[in-house]
Amino acid sequence: MAEETWKTAITDTGPGKIRVRGYSITDIMEKLSYAEAVFLVLKGELPSRAEAELMNAILVSSIDHGPTPPSVLGTRTVLSGGNSLNAAIAGGVLVIGDIHGGAIEQSARIMQEWAGKEGDVEDLAAKLVDWLKGTETRMPGFGHQLHKVDPRTGKLFEIAARVGYSGRHIDLCVAVEKALEEKLGRQLPININGATAAVISDMGFDWRLGKGFFIISRVPGLLAHAYEEMTRERPMRKLGPPSFDYDGPDERDI
Amino acid sequence: MAEETWKTAITDTGPGKIRVRGYSITDIMEKLSYAEAVFLVLKGELPSRAEAELMNAILVSSIDHGPTPPSVLGTRTVLSGGNSLNAAIAGGVLVIGDIHGGAIEQSARIMQEWAGKEGDVEDLAAKLVDWLKGTETRMPGFGHQLHKVDPRTGKLFEIAARVGYSGRHIDLCVAVEKALEEKLGRQLPININGATAAVISDMGFDWRLGKGFFIISRVPGLLAHAYEEMTRERPMRKLGPPSFDYDGPDERDI
Amino acid sequence: MAEETWKTAITDTGPGKIRVRGYSITDIMEKLSYAEAVFLVLKGELPSRAEAELMNAILVSSIDHGPTPPSVLGTRTVLSGGNSLNAAIAGGVLVIGDIHGGAIEQSARIMQEWAGKEGDVEDLAAKLVDWLKGTETRMPGFGHQLHKVDPRTGKLFEIAARVGYSGRHIDLCVAVEKALEEKLGRQLPININGATAAVISDMGFDWRLGKGFFIISRVPGLLAHAYEEMTRERPMRKLGPPSFDYDGPDERDI
Amino acid sequence: MAEETWKTAITDTGPGKIRVRGYSITDIMEKLSYAEAVFLVLKGELPSRAEAELMNAILVSSIDHGPTPPSVLGTRTVLSGGNSLNAAIAGGVLVIGDIHGGAIEQSARIMQEWAGKEGDVEDLAAKLVDWLKGTETRMPGFGHQLHKVDPRTGKLFEIAARVGYSGRHIDLCVAVEKALEEKLGRQLPININGATAAVISDMGFDWRLGKGFFIISRVPGLLAHAYEEMTRERPMRKLGPPSFDYDGPDERDI
Repeated sequence: MAEETWKTAITDTGPGKIRVRGYSITDIMEKLSYAEAVFLVLKGELPSRAEAELMNAILVSSIDHGPTPPSVLGTRTVLSGGNSLNAAIAGGVLVIGDIHGGAIEQSARIMQEWAGKEGDVEDLAAKLVDWLKGTETRMPGFGHQLHKVDPRTGKLFEIAARVGYSGRHIDLCVAVEKALEEKLGRQLPININGATAAVISDMGFDWRLGKGFFIISRVPGLLAHAYEEMTRERPMRKLGPPSFDYDGPDERDI
Repeated sequence: MAEETWKTAITDTGPGKIRVRGYSITDIMEKLSYAEAVFLVLKGELPSRAEAELMNAILVSSIDHGPTPPSVLGTRTVLSGGNSLNAAIAGGVLVIGDIHGGAIEQSARIMQEWAGKEGDVEDLAAKLVDWLKGTETRMPGFGHQLHKVDPRTGKLFEIAARVGYSGRHIDLCVAVEKALEEKLGRQLPININGATAAVISDMGFDWRLGKGFFIISRVPGLLAHAYEEMTRERPMRKLGPPSFDYDGPDERDI
Repeated sequence: MAEETWKTAITDTGPGKIRVRGYSITDIMEKLSYAEAVFLVLKGELPSRAEAELMNAILVSSIDHGPTPPSVLGTRTVLSGGNSLNAAIAGGVLVIGDIHGGAIEQSARIMQEWAGKEGDVEDLAAKLVDWLKGTETRMPGFGHQLHKVDPRTGKLFEIAARVGYSGRHIDLCVAVEKALEEKLGRQLPININGATAAVISDMGFDWRLGKGFFIISRVPGLLAHAYEEMTRERPMRKLGPPSFDYDGPDERDI
Repeated sequence: MAEETWKTAITDTGPGKIRVRGYSITDIMEKLSYAEAVFLVLKGELPSRAEAELMNAILVSSIDHGPTPPSVLGTRTVLSGGNSLNAAIAGGVLVIGDIHGGAIEQSARIMQEWAGKEGDVEDLAAKLVDWLKGTETRMPGFGHQLHKVDPRTGKLFEIAARVGYSGRHIDLCVAVEKALEEKLGRQLPININGATAAVISDMGFDWRLGKGFFIISRVPGLLAHAYEEMTRERPMRKLGPPSFDYDGPDERDI
């Protein structure tokens, strides 16, 4: 049977009252940007100005990436089958897993573990790359299928520099990029997931929230794709597969 | 078999290129707030300053409403069963349907239909309320279970006034509130869903996108609840029901 | 706040006790086929022998239809993104909407409405087809994109004849097929959804359960596809789109 | 861009042709029970008579367990928010994770690993329990919150005995129950998940399919609950929480 009472530290409500982390919703509407409100609801405290600007850039950076990410296929397929907008968004969010959109979480996990060790970041980065080699692990958040250099990474770090935001995780992240090139002889530039992982780690967010930032960022894109499918395509158009070969058992009788 | 080529007008991508509605993602990261980027990705054009401020207030206004909305129960129940963060968010978004979170869409649909008719808004509001009475329809977006007066509505309209944003849908919305009181003798103040419906209608958004604004707004709240469940509660705690009475067939044999 | 106590007429449980619609689960395990148990849990009563055989044929008939149905794309896309088996099945079930898999429900709705009218089925079928013409409605459950004649329909009706099961909805369904040909001059043979709709309607099931029979039937197929994707394909292979053309706004600056 | 051609060994389709694992769908409708068809679609081959009977008992055994399992809460919450039947089923399936319904998979994984080792099952069971103790692991599939003795387990093994079905995994499963009592001094009787895990392992199914059998079994139950919610309860009734205490930051100003 259900527990009598739940506990929550997020939002208190009552007649005429909505207070998120202690702040009234009308104050939040008046004074905070959405990025600041996201920071508040997840962290429990207001961001600094530098953090607010970086959080905004992070949430904006992955707002859409065109029709090829599999979460878009998920959203459009659900919509196309004759379902509601919220089901279509849910279908896209369901696709965002360990392989698609999981790099922020995985990269932040590794960075938070290694940045917690003693030593300077260059040494740690070298040891981290040795560990990656020894365990044949790919460093998540580095390299990109499409972009040789992810343009979003440079911009995020440029903003960080401009607002004077730095920290051990960002430093480690940059050092890992160098160490990967030196030790593996491969250019694996930090992509937006790796850069985001570094910044949210310096902001003090638990790596387990990693996928969440990508989800918040991408939901408007999924919505735009759902709406485009709804208004521009006919229902149940053939979204896949192009063709198929059956290679199972031959025809047979029971 | 699948269509050869998709068409999209949202985002163009290529090596080193991500352009949302024509604008490069790095420009967007540098110059737009998340609320402006949401407006852009959904509408295809940049908002005015007034629209940007109102869109921000809308997205902030529903970021969380504590543990009682059913979408929170959906998210926490999925997480508690031993599932991933994205599945938990999807589970919450799935709950946001015609009854929970559907009022923006339904209210915008009615307002867009009636604001499209000729006549001044007071007359239209009077006729709209007559129609509601005749068809025994409840006007969506007015009244609230918990809040006698929804504090978010006043703040949203206050911001609209301050930035000088007005339009026929907002005017109609206010007129409907009056007409409901005059003709039904009931105070049914505009709630945040009705106010949002009016503002996005004046911004030119299709009512079919209505649930989308609520979903974008609420996803961070759902994430906060998923994280709180993950870090503060034991797995598969009893979330419901408190108890149950079985009133089906008596015990019997096959 | 939550209701104190739920009511349910489906299953009673207690220490050592699981009784579905009054029958002990161990009796059900011993004496009922899965198809009979499905009938029981949904209808509240045991099926006749004829109903049991038909329910089995219905549940078997749509167990899989290869890789082209969009629900398979949904399931494989979720799995491929790095998600759990249950999330992948949920992703496929989400796709089963009004357009994909909705024909049983829609067809049963129409048949239940028309079979409830007075008159013989030939007359009703003629009037129904006139109504379809007048409202430019496609009769759901008739015709098939791939199969000129759906082989499953003949088999289901053959079994019905063999076990001596008939009823007004099946008769109406057959009469509608004839009337469509006579009045529209088009061969639109009953497909498995239309045939299923007729049989479950004669069994007394509410049309609103229509999608449910398709879902129960197809879940094992979705599971087989999820497992094949998991064991035979690499993660995040490109499931779609084949290519895309961007036709949105030209490159521009903020 | 998407792969040109998919490969599949499950079902071949073409005009008038649906062949699952080589068998025509009409033969399957005529000659196979649903449980046999499930075995076929997942395994690629027909079950023996004994396997067919056990598969039926497995699929029937978990068809419903009343309103308290969290997947029922998921399904009812989605339906209650004003969503479609398929979204409600998807919502329930989403809840079935590592904690709720994951025991078949986890138990089968351990049994398949240990039954693959050399030695007789009593020795292996003893070593397995030592390993559990050493790693402080709970053996999944043993013990039950509600049932001191799960009545479904005895029935499943009784059927196995009657049809003459036995195997190394079933033997190991029984031996583990004894070893748990001898070595831990605790009665942790095999529950239906553990018994199912043993039987499907002897049938040669991959443990990674474990959750799938539970999902197939439970979907009709979830459907019955969705339908009961739809027809018997008012929309958006309060499903949870009973009440809540806010223990976050005190009221404060921005």
